Amino acid sequence: MSRKLRVGAAQLGPIQLADSKASVIRRLLNLMEEAHTSGCHLIVYPELALTTFFPRHWRDSTAEIDLWFEREMPSSETRPLFEAAVRLQMSFYLGYAELAFEQEDIRRYNTSILVGPDGRVVGKYRKVHLPGHRDFRPNYPFQQLEKRYFDVGNLGFPVWWHRDVIMGMAICNDRRWPETYRVMGLQDVELIMLGYNTHTINQYHAESKHLKMLHHHIVMQAGAYQNGTWIVATAKTGIEDGCELMGGSCIVAPTGEIVAHAVTQEDELITFDCDMDLGGQIKRNRFNLPITVASSTTV
Amino acid sequence: MSRKLRVGAAQLGPIQLADSKASVIRRLLNLMEEAHTSGCHLIVYPELALTTFFPRHWRDSTAEIDLWFEREMPSSETRPLFEAAVRLQMSFYLGYAELAFEQEDIRRYNTSILVGPDGRVVGKYRKVHLPGHRDFRPNYPFQQLEKRYFDVGNLGFPVWWHRDVIMGMAICNDRRWPETYRVMGLQDVELIMLGYNTHTINQYHAESKHLKMLHHHIVMQAGAYQNGTWIVATAKTGIEDGCELMGGSCIVAPTGEIVAHAVTQEDELITFDCDMDLGGQIKRNRFNLPITVASSTTV
Repeated sequence: MSRKLRVGAAQLGPIQLADSKASVIRRLLNLMEEAHTSGCHLIVYPELALTTFFPRHWRDSTAEIDLWFEREMPSSETRPLFEAAVRLQMSFYLGYAELAFEQEDIRRYNTSILVGPDGRVVGKYRKVHLPGHRDFRPNYPFQQLEKRYFDVGNLGFPVWWHRDVIMGMAICNDRRWPETYRVMGLQDVELIMLGYNTHTINQYHAESKHLKMLHHHIVMQAGAYQNGTWIVATAKTGIEDGCELMGGSCIVAPTGEIVAHAVTQEDELITFDCDMDLGGQIKRNRFNLPITVASSTTV
Repeated sequence: MSRKLRVGAAQLGPIQLADSKASVIRRLLNLMEEAHTSGCHLIVYPELALTTFFPRHWRDSTAEIDLWFEREMPSSETRPLFEAAVRLQMSFYLGYAELAFEQEDIRRYNTSILVGPDGRVVGKYRKVHLPGHRDFRPNYPFQQLEKRYFDVGNLGFPVWWHRDVIMGMAICNDRRWPETYRVMGLQDVELIMLGYNTHTINQYHAESKHLKMLHHHIVMQAGAYQNGTWIVATAKTGIEDGCELMGGSCIVAPTGEIVAHAVTQEDELITFDCDMDLGGQIKRNRFNLPITVASSTTV
């Protein structure tokens, strides 16, 4: 009997700096309703899905910066998402900026959570591969201040047993490193969820625009095949605060094939009926990845 | 000033079991002459380029098996290749079956060497990721006895400074593992040479034929990009001993782009003028791969 899970990548068009969080939540809810209608049981939202990609903006004041961060999850503003998950029996991956209180310290992370159909947080991941810079760079067309605004993730790349599937999470730039997939592959991961915000131009050096999409594709196709896992990758895209974000949300099979792909730079749901046993023969016959028991992480 | 090196992938059509080694050497020499005419200074021959892909044949007798192996390099039969290299000032990568005498033991390896324009062996690599099985499998359409005929390579993945370029080697199945590229990437590799023999069907499990080519492409495209390196991959191809070998010899840029690709299943040379500085900004800006000094390995 096959283990099929219908999953959706819930791509978001731009979120402008002036947009209210309430308006964003309404868009997320609309996509969740659409996913439910399409028979999905899991949807993947982008990285930093509640705000504009704020690391492009320099701010001096911590108070101002912290307006972009969530102090609790759910909060009164985000609770409707959790309530909808229960009502629609939907699991979801959500990327957001997390303000965390660790012992005496305040930490800030670029975080994703997996929420189950009971409205509880199943797992949490904090981005490891932070791109960008800490300092203000006046000659750049826009800033990329992830290294300034975020601490490096301190939860590793755990996996979770959820809906009869071994699931893992990653965020944006993580997808360029083969180690991201491998660390989860060694834990027998079957489905990796990944949200991203990728600008169509690179601040550091001249690079053809089309290469951004090629790189996005090949690293995930290879990572999926080399570890026998599904990957669901969801963009925030379009012209946001005057900067263009690449789309290209897609679902990649353990064969390395792209089986679903977004075509717009707007809110768009793409779905696929994923056979979670498809990766098994690649893992066991082509490679010799060990079978391990999924770890359970307390969040 | 750019560091350009014109390289060729010297694809071979089939070598039948009955073909003489002298006839194979003539084909290799023809391809070397053609590469010289095309302005190449380095060519890459396939894996096991002197014989049929003999691991598909079961033999009981060690004496029979050892007929496929080279006891010295060069030998009287292979010496014309080395002499041509000097005459044409050509470097070449050659895959062959190596019979090695290590202390008291005889070892057998699936080996490649890099030979310089002085006709000396610059470096040697012995295949690490041996696919296949040791036992006879009567139900298989053909055997894949690499695990029976070869010992696991014991030289790691070293790199060599040759022609002002940091070069590494790999063989066939090695290309499916991200670690292959990474181990050389951490040594700042700029050009990886890889010969292969890949059957169009998989003995282990049903897999669409087209996936073999997709996997071949995506693992190398990702490996090239993730480590900022050129890859030259050369097939033995066509119907050999009644079994079909996939072609698809190609040259992959550090951008992950396939910049040259064979179109036949015969002897065919493809070439590209490779800028060895192209990978630098990917290594240093996109990733943060360390700059190390190329190691020098005595063979």
